Amino acid sequence: MRQFDTVIRNGTLATASDVFRADLGISQGKIVAIGVDLDAGVVEIDATGKLVVPGGVDGHCHLEQPTRDGSVMADDFFTGTRSAACGGTTTVIPFACQFKGQAMRDVIADYHRRAAGKPVVDYAFHLIVSDPTEQLLGQDLPALIRDGYTSFKIYMTYDDMKLNDRQILELLSVARRDGAMAMIHAENADFIGWLTETLLAAGNTEPRYHAQSRPMLVEREATHRAISMAELADVPILIVHVSGREAVEQIHWAQGQGLRIFAETCPQYLVLTEHDLAGHGFEGAKCICSPPPRDKENQAVIWDGLASGIFHIVSSDHAPFRYADPAGKMIRGGATPFNWVPNGIPGIETRLPILFSEGVVKGRISLQRFVELTATNPAKMYGLYPRKGCLAIGADADIVIYDPERRVTITNSLLHHNVDYTPYEGLAVTGWPETVLSRGTVIVDHGDFVGTAGHGMFLRCDPPELARPKPFVPSP
Amino acid sequence: MRQFDTVIRNGTLATASDVFRADLGISQGKIVAIGVDLDAGVVEIDATGKLVVPGGVDGHCHLEQPTRDGSVMADDFFTGTRSAACGGTTTVIPFACQFKGQAMRDVIADYHRRAAGKPVVDYAFHLIVSDPTEQLLGQDLPALIRDGYTSFKIYMTYDDMKLNDRQILELLSVARRDGAMAMIHAENADFIGWLTETLLAAGNTEPRYHAQSRPMLVEREATHRAISMAELADVPILIVHVSGREAVEQIHWAQGQGLRIFAETCPQYLVLTEHDLAGHGFEGAKCICSPPPRDKENQAVIWDGLASGIFHIVSSDHAPFRYADPAGKMIRGGATPFNWVPNGIPGIETRLPILFSEGVVKGRISLQRFVELTATNPAKMYGLYPRKGCLAIGADADIVIYDPERRVTITNSLLHHNVDYTPYEGLAVTGWPETVLSRGTVIVDHGDFVGTAGHGMFLRCDPPELARPKPFVPSP
Amino acid sequence: MRQFDTVIRNGTLATASDVFRADLGISQGKIVAIGVDLDAGVVEIDATGKLVVPGGVDGHCHLEQPTRDGSVMADDFFTGTRSAACGGTTTVIPFACQFKGQAMRDVIADYHRRAAGKPVVDYAFHLIVSDPTEQLLGQDLPALIRDGYTSFKIYMTYDDMKLNDRQILELLSVARRDGAMAMIHAENADFIGWLTETLLAAGNTEPRYHAQSRPMLVEREATHRAISMAELADVPILIVHVSGREAVEQIHWAQGQGLRIFAETCPQYLVLTEHDLAGHGFEGAKCICSPPPRDKENQAVIWDGLASGIFHIVSSDHAPFRYADPAGKMIRGGATPFNWVPNGIPGIETRLPILFSEGVVKGRISLQRFVELTATNPAKMYGLYPRKGCLAIGADADIVIYDPERRVTITNSLLHHNVDYTPYEGLAVTGWPETVLSRGTVIVDHGDFVGTAGHGMFLRCDPPELARPKPFVPSP
Amino acid sequence: MRQFDTVIRNGTLATASDVFRADLGISQGKIVAIGVDLDAGVVEIDATGKLVVPGGVDGHCHLEQPTRDGSVMADDFFTGTRSAACGGTTTVIPFACQFKGQAMRDVIADYHRRAAGKPVVDYAFHLIVSDPTEQLLGQDLPALIRDGYTSFKIYMTYDDMKLNDRQILELLSVARRDGAMAMIHAENADFIGWLTETLLAAGNTEPRYHAQSRPMLVEREATHRAISMAELADVPILIVHVSGREAVEQIHWAQGQGLRIFAETCPQYLVLTEHDLAGHGFEGAKCICSPPPRDKENQAVIWDGLASGIFHIVSSDHAPFRYADPAGKMIRGGATPFNWVPNGIPGIETRLPILFSEGVVKGRISLQRFVELTATNPAKMYGLYPRKGCLAIGADADIVIYDPERRVTITNSLLHHNVDYTPYEGLAVTGWPETVLSRGTVIVDHGDFVGTAGHGMFLRCDPPELARPKPFVPSP
Repeated sequence: MRQFDTVIRNGTLATASDVFRADLGISQGKIVAIGVDLDAGVVEIDATGKLVVPGGVDGHCHLEQPTRDGSVMADDFFTGTRSAACGGTTTVIPFACQFKGQAMRDVIADYHRRAAGKPVVDYAFHLIVSDPTEQLLGQDLPALIRDGYTSFKIYMTYDDMKLNDRQILELLSVARRDGAMAMIHAENADFIGWLTETLLAAGNTEPRYHAQSRPMLVEREATHRAISMAELADVPILIVHVSGREAVEQIHWAQGQGLRIFAETCPQYLVLTEHDLAGHGFEGAKCICSPPPRDKENQAVIWDGLASGIFHIVSSDHAPFRYADPAGKMIRGGATPFNWVPNGIPGIETRLPILFSEGVVKGRISLQRFVELTATNPAKMYGLYPRKGCLAIGADADIVIYDPERRVTITNSLLHHNVDYTPYEGLAVTGWPETVLSRGTVIVDHGDFVGTAGHGMFLRCDPPELARPKPFVPSP
Repeated sequence: MRQFDTVIRNGTLATASDVFRADLGISQGKIVAIGVDLDAGVVEIDATGKLVVPGGVDGHCHLEQPTRDGSVMADDFFTGTRSAACGGTTTVIPFACQFKGQAMRDVIADYHRRAAGKPVVDYAFHLIVSDPTEQLLGQDLPALIRDGYTSFKIYMTYDDMKLNDRQILELLSVARRDGAMAMIHAENADFIGWLTETLLAAGNTEPRYHAQSRPMLVEREATHRAISMAELADVPILIVHVSGREAVEQIHWAQGQGLRIFAETCPQYLVLTEHDLAGHGFEGAKCICSPPPRDKENQAVIWDGLASGIFHIVSSDHAPFRYADPAGKMIRGGATPFNWVPNGIPGIETRLPILFSEGVVKGRISLQRFVELTATNPAKMYGLYPRKGCLAIGADADIVIYDPERRVTITNSLLHHNVDYTPYEGLAVTGWPETVLSRGTVIVDHGDFVGTAGHGMFLRCDPPELARPKPFVPSP
Repeated sequence: MRQFDTVIRNGTLATASDVFRADLGISQGKIVAIGVDLDAGVVEIDATGKLVVPGGVDGHCHLEQPTRDGSVMADDFFTGTRSAACGGTTTVIPFACQFKGQAMRDVIADYHRRAAGKPVVDYAFHLIVSDPTEQLLGQDLPALIRDGYTSFKIYMTYDDMKLNDRQILELLSVARRDGAMAMIHAENADFIGWLTETLLAAGNTEPRYHAQSRPMLVEREATHRAISMAELADVPILIVHVSGREAVEQIHWAQGQGLRIFAETCPQYLVLTEHDLAGHGFEGAKCICSPPPRDKENQAVIWDGLASGIFHIVSSDHAPFRYADPAGKMIRGGATPFNWVPNGIPGIETRLPILFSEGVVKGRISLQRFVELTATNPAKMYGLYPRKGCLAIGADADIVIYDPERRVTITNSLLHHNVDYTPYEGLAVTGWPETVLSRGTVIVDHGDFVGTAGHGMFLRCDPPELARPKPFVPSP
Repeated sequence: MRQFDTVIRNGTLATASDVFRADLGISQGKIVAIGVDLDAGVVEIDATGKLVVPGGVDGHCHLEQPTRDGSVMADDFFTGTRSAACGGTTTVIPFACQFKGQAMRDVIADYHRRAAGKPVVDYAFHLIVSDPTEQLLGQDLPALIRDGYTSFKIYMTYDDMKLNDRQILELLSVARRDGAMAMIHAENADFIGWLTETLLAAGNTEPRYHAQSRPMLVEREATHRAISMAELADVPILIVHVSGREAVEQIHWAQGQGLRIFAETCPQYLVLTEHDLAGHGFEGAKCICSPPPRDKENQAVIWDGLASGIFHIVSSDHAPFRYADPAGKMIRGGATPFNWVPNGIPGIETRLPILFSEGVVKGRISLQRFVELTATNPAKMYGLYPRKGCLAIGADADIVIYDPERRVTITNSLLHHNVDYTPYEGLAVTGWPETVLSRGTVIVDHGDFVGTAGHGMFLRCDPPELARPKPFVPSP
């Protein structure tokens, strides 16, 4: 008779397709058995009345990322991954962000140094390419893809990072040739620049004008252009943080043409609106992110797209800027003009609870779809599947035991990030991660963080499976 | 130490979301364990190099169905389910077809009598409603839904069966109120009638004119109308056997509006074309079905929709009419005018092999999607999930061990139906079901049918899960 | 030197394409000269500061039309055409309405008898076909088309008149073969029936429920179906009284496919909304027409379509039912349930003033487009061009001298119809017809009706030019 | 009794809305009378059996335009306008093209110098803005618009001339504020650059690769982007030389949204295809223009759009490069790589004959629509209406007497431009301009050019009427 290291007993397991009652047995950090009345484990965890789901994979978050001026985002690889873990996320894929003039290898080395000894959950890196030199495109990127950096992000806006269409096409060609996944931030930089200048010239500097500087068509146009480039380069892409109807329509149109266009959205587009940018005083700055939150009607369109399959993943786009901080939202301690406020909001810990409560509990999406959007699809999208994102035999035992009935009112003091606010302050949710395992090790125990800095391992990513189904080859 | 009844060892398991290597243990006809190095089974089946997938659920097939004139379709509940089993399908949902004037209870009783002692795999019934009296809508149907007949089919064409829009709305209201799934055959009867008369008046009677009598817009119009009725009645529907671009566009449009419109297609729309209706002599009649096969461009649109998620299930629409048979295609032993040729073709055994070979092997869809389209989604669509359609713990051990590398040229002599032809004669496929279990019992063993008439049990269906996600209620 | 019968001097002439200052000379009832400093006329009319436009052609109005129960609509051929004339309309095309069982020749004869001696402006007839027998389709209709009855209306709703799809296809085939124009009232009768019964069963009988019994999708579905039938029969059609976005989208889609689908709207869809059906007491019944007025957003869509060219004509759909009249809205002198209230509102006199004021004066459409929509296109659509609808040399001198600056508040006492209310009571407009000529004869003089019963002549219509551009043949 | 300078007698007059038989009287270069049996003219022209239409307005042509390297396009203001006149065009609007660094006033002065004494028909100038400095946007352009240069062209491609999105938005703001019309060449420069480099790297240099370097999506993307900028700046635009389906779909979509997006096409997209680029040897270079001609299916889409109203004008985009000329297609006298071949083809003389023959004679468009597309709408679009483009009283007597029955096979020796080929060599057409008048002066007499260099006058343009309907103001 054999003994499991750990058995999670009597829970309701949910995968991206199935929900059923079973025990789950773990050995050497892997899932090795799922079944009825499993043999005993050294550790026994009772999951009666609880859900047992794959640990979340956050495919879009920023950790310890420096900005051009030398300041660094508020969450480092410890606080950020701790927050992730407490929110049920057991794999994060933050960015290694190239500034113009930097060699990508150096950038990556720098991020590895930053991460060393800190992460509490496993992690991989997306590359942000802002300087696509011939060397990078021809030599470095192909080598990096082989080394496990198989995704990169392309910005169509932000002065420091945006690429022009020609550069984007060249990067997409690399993605096609060498097997990588391109994530695209689709907003038209020139449109934003023109609108911003117009607004500022009229003296409109408050946070709420951020939304007016990036109306829906700014995103729609860039989405159509990104789709066109993917079509031209004949390669799948992922449009990240889609915010509303006009962008969804472009994506839906492209999918109907047979193009492999994938789409991501984030909790901010499900529960925030532009009215949250108009809080009293400078409070609205807490919700400044790009694209901006829209309105209730656009939220409904996003929900419909999550239900119908237009969207493939839900990420946090966690961008930890502190509110009352010179390196954060209040750059000079006061009412910074909207265009100087850092774009981005924290959310790595609230991603699963918000989607579960607003989505599954309210009947907008099924439990299986919740798992697919938060774990399975991100893992497939970025070449971490089947190691991550599923409850498959042989997969890493990254598991969340989720209490579907716990009622929580979100408040920043509950959260484990290093940010002094949450945009979701006061939001009541049903359901919360109770116990979290990373490779079989309990890192959150009944809501208490019990993990260890440095437990998290770096993950080399395979070529993205979701993006490129290939002729079937039977397993050996 | 416990012993399983059966262990399928060392296969590559595939669910609608995951693919992984594992053993699978069966006890008392249920899947009870999935894992590494499972304990021994009384029966041990080696699946090395093979796929282990949920048995197919054929959500659209006709068995032993009588026609108005007293003749009966060629496959009875034995030959039809034997053919299904040999093709990897372990659950069938044929129709209990009401003729005008018949009480639905009587119809169902008649079909149960016909089925008694014959099926080799489990079965449920869809109801074909052709006479929606007040009694049926107000009394009988609600009771039947409670009794496990939770889906019904609505014909918008065929003189004997078609319902008008008012009747359809009334049926959809029942579906909404009592929790049933409506399948809709969407072709405009009046358009077909007008075109048919025009063609016949011009002396165009050969089988190939069947396609001209039902061009794409005949289906597009009815699809738009069916969608409108679903919108008006506020209930999901399934559009069955969608054949090409114009209908897909309507469905895609509706899905983009947030409407829950589901779609089915069949192998005939993936590998046949209207040219197959123009075989020499009367041979084309072998491919007469409705809607008719279209052309290569339309096939490509269907494939795109299978890959992108526009479609939800692939069924056979098996309609077993013999070719050289007075009750079949050659009504008077000769060149029957196209409009007198029975509509429908056999395909219950070839459904999985064709979709696997043309879809998975050729890289058009993933293995997971194959499982979802052929087993998981039909089970969810018709209230048989999680008992059927998945490899979940607790599910019925309806399992196919699929040889992904076996090369087969389809010929009618290989098949186990009671039809004297297959429309796929000569089609070469890669992959074929090797061994098939129904509730843990081997019914096909290395290609040989070893099942037993009467093994198949009648299944009461729950309300359809896929169609109506509901607020989450944690399992007790 | 020659002398004109009449010269209209110094006005601003407007055609469907051009606006310019000129004199206009009339002889023998025809326009014979347009130019600078024309020679003198026996009659001289000063049009300084005024517009000189072609007399309106109202392509959709009901006069002296009997209903099944024997009552007759309130305007006869005198009061109705007098009202038309005073509103700037010099040609009307009311309906000759067949009831089931009637021979169309008899119907037409009856209408000619009714009209005899009454009309003050010229008139033609559309045929309403409600009983398309073989005799009618094969013999009578072709002969009638040759006799100048070149358009017919098809109802997809109203129990007494609706045709099924097969009948419609047969009528469209006649239109194609013999050269006629089909007007289609596109609402789904079964949808309306089901909704109406549901509303009544819930005790919802007030006028405002009329709108709920015919929501936008009722019209959208029928519009898509009508388009499909036109596509199948390969013939242009006109969708009449289009009321809002969803129908416009279908028409716009069809036009983008290259189909020749024409569209009409009416003033009620430009200035009324469903709120007008919710007046206190039974007042809302005054605005009951079908389709019902929608909302402001739908009005905006109609205006956009008028400006962009999606629409081709603006008609009145004048249907004169008195409010406080047993044969009108108050059938039993009280609160008639909405489904018993006659559908239709008066508007033959207010058509031009409303479109001019809301359209031209407010800058939504150009003056040329106003002429095109109200006169030129209806004349072309129904085979009366170039005799009617233009300021061309040789055309009938049907002319309106329009005061573009006169401010009028519409009130029923100003109007010349035989109806006891106007749905536009209190609407302020800028611009009003001042003087109107029919074939050179002044019939309205500075606002006073000076016409003569019986002046109006019956017009035989040619095959519709707008619908069927044909290879150019130079004039002999 | 008065005498006209000229009377054109007994012709069939056609305006953008009407066709009728009449005489037309001219005095002092203006149309002063249209009517029956006009008094005598000093000059009498018999137009029996002929069409009398407004002289064409070519809103898109290049004359005597220098390129950066100092060479000049082959037609100067004499040969180019002579060719125009002989083709029935009596107004041309060529470009004054700014190179970067040039002051626009200087550019215009240079073009006026070039034109001095040469034109045989009237002319205005569009401005090509390639260097939108603050001075130009803030000072010069507003002043120039007031001076009668009320339209400008924006290139989204061509290295020397393309503007980025920000610059385009700023120009569109000027157009909105000061009342000008923006014409946009919509192709994505970066897409073309990337494709071109890819093709050249593969050794694909022949003329036919020109089409592959600019596939339909290159134009579709830029069209969507241009529409988005017009929407953002809230101003109408004209998309020039639209070539096929994907661009038409974007425009049609925008029109359906209520946006005022106008569209132009050219004869090359109606009768040429990409196969014409694949002539033997280097011959294909004769048809190199941008966007490139597409295929038959795309031609059909353009025809449908001309008929349905999606398009507003048909221009020539006459760009006179000689074939066997170092300053023309054969830059080095040999097989120039496709990307070095000047983009553009001659066609100023064949515009009307091709559209008339393929459009009117073949029944694809009406005669009125022909007039609208070739004369009336261009005049309205560019602020020359009602002086040009119509047969209105008071308009310039720019008139074409068109022989609708003359059969001509186009060959370069028939044409009057200074180019050594025509891309339409061998095309048989029905109908040809017979006699042409410019401001009452006969400049082409029965096919013979009898005009005078310098007769043509410069035209100051008003703000564009078609683009901005404004609230009606009655004429004084």
